[in-house]
This record gives sequence, C-alpha cells and structure tokens, in this order.
Amino acid sequence: MECCLASLMRAPSVSIVLPSKSSRRSSSLHLRQLVGFHPSRCQKMFVPGFGEASPEAKAAANLHQFFTFVAIKIVLAQLQSYNREAYEELMEFVSRNSLNDGDQFCRRLMRESPRHKGLALRIMEVRSAYSKRDFEWDNLQILAHKMVDESNTRLMRDYVKETSHIEDN
Amino acid sequence: MECCLASLMRAPSVSIVLPSKSSRRSSSLHLRQLVGFHPSRCQKMFVPGFGEASPEAKAAANLHQFFTFVAIKIVLAQLQSYNREAYEELMEFVSRNSLNDGDQFCRRLMRESPRHKGLALRIMEVRSAYSKRDFEWDNLQILAHKMVDESNTRLMRDYVKETSHIEDN
Repeated sequence: MECCLASLMRAPSVSIVLPSKSSRRSSSLHLRQLVGFHPSRCQKMFVPGFGEASPEAKAAANLHQFFTFVAIKIVLAQLQSYNREAYEELMEFVSRNSLNDGDQFCRRLMRESPRHKGLALRIMEVRSAYSKRDFEWDNLQILAHKMVDESNTRLMRDYVKETSHIEDN
Repeated sequence: MECCLASLMRAPSVSIVLPSKSSRRSSSLHLRQLVGFHPSRCQKMFVPGFGEASPEAKAAANLHQFFTFVAIKIVLAQLQSYNREAYEELMEFVSRNSLNDGDQFCRRLMRESPRHKGLALRIMEVRSAYSKRDFEWDNLQILAHKMVDESNTRLMRDYVKETSHIEDN
C-alpha cells in the first residue's frame, strides 16, 4: 500500500511524460481506485481537524506571533544604541510580561504609561514593516523545502546504517 | 523619536516621489542621522539574537514541525477510511509519543515495528509532497500581512475607544 501511495505522490511529475490526456486520466484513476481515494481529494490531500481555519491560516497566526517577537528584538537593539532609558524600561516590561501572545503583550504595553504606549506603537509599526519589507518569504519557502528533504534523507540513512550493519570507512 | 522612526519605516514609498536621486539620498541620510541608524542597517532592520540562524531559518524550522504534524493528520485521515488496523496502530503510537519534535517522532516510529516503519516512510513522503505541492505559500504571505494589519488596527482602535470615552451608537 505504501508503494501505491508513493506512486500517487509522484503522479504529477510522472504523468507529464505520458502520451495523451485520456491515458493520463485513466492511469491516475486506476491509482486512485487502488488506494481508495475519494475523487474530490485527488487534487489536494485532505487535511482534517483544522476547524474553520486552514493550515495556512494556522501557520500565518504562528508567523504573526513570530513577527511580534522579532519586532521587539529589533526595537530593543535600536534603543540600546541611542536611548538607554527606553531600552531599560522595555527590558523591564518584557521581564514581567509573557511574549507568548504578542497582541496581548502590545495591549498591556500601551496601557502601562504614555512612554510605554510610544514603544508599543513602534513595535506594531516595526512588525508590519518587517513582515512586508524585510522578511524573505522566498527564502522561507526554499529553506523549509530543504529542511524537509534533508530530514527525510537523514532519517532514512540513519535507519539503513543501523539495520544493515555496514561499517563506515 | 517615534515619529522619526515612523517616517523611516515609510521611507521607501515616500522616496519614490522625490525628484532626483541625489536629493533622495540626502533626505534619507538626514533621516538616518536623526534616529542614529548605522549606515549598513539602512537597507534592512537589524535583527539581533538569532545566533547563526536567520529569522527565516527559525521560521522554516517551525514550519517543518508543522508540516510533520499536518502529514500525520493527513495519513491518519487516509488510513481511517480504508485501513482501520493501521489507523489504530498509528493512533496508539501518537498517544504514547510526543509530537513536539517531528523528526524524533518519525525516528521512533521507524524503529517500532516493520509495519510502523511503513507508516513513518509514508508520513515523511506526505510532508514532503504537502510542503511542495499542496501548501499555499502565497496565501500564507497574504494571510500573515492581513493579520498584522488587522491586529494593529484593532489594538489602536480599542485603545482610542477606551481613552476617548466615545460611546458607540
């Protein structure tokens, strides 16, 4: 069964070399029947359990938190070089407040004092500018693909090494 | 100081309407001097504290974990419909093993039994296919930008509402 699914995963690249549209369709239909796929799932794999949100929305929400975290780091680094007082104020606030929820952090920071409000507005502005201008989205995609490939290769190589007892030269 | 930084963030779009290259350069230089920016940091904001990894690599590592999690969900949903035995085996393994480290999970799954090894190979294949073919990278970027904008608007609106005591109609 694993072999059939493996072929199905590779189907898009394989089907390119097939001679005609009709034979391509019939061969992929055959594969679908073999592994018991529902026709509507053939374009994309069905991802269950994300409720109303898509996996992309879930990942975007995670990145949103990450951007707030990065923005706080950026603002702290900027303040450290030219406004020690504000730097220490923000450091003190960070030590008292969790960064797990970035929006909640900003909400609290805005209400701490007028000076803290200025810092919160700046963090919000930086996270927007960073996500739109500085963050390398193409690079993210390339790195993620590379990580998946390398991890898969490493896992399989380690397993083969362990089970075949071939000694390294 | 916040206002100066705010202008600096918006500088790229503002500078487009400036008449000549030289005046553009001098005006941005002026801004840099105002906020004490190091010249080498002017192209991109400096993000400290990521060691050897870039923020993109950090985010990619997170997405890599996420793809493994999604792949397990996909494989479980597929098995549930046509191979109850394997589904229950995988569910039982998931209940005993943490999903926090996806690679570690696959490593253990491969060594559990030959049948579990088949499942591990399939999860690895699905996470590769999902990240390259199904996951909507463009959509991720659009959603993340939207989330940052909406969160910023909401935070500022809530704050203004709270402090200005304007009653909603």
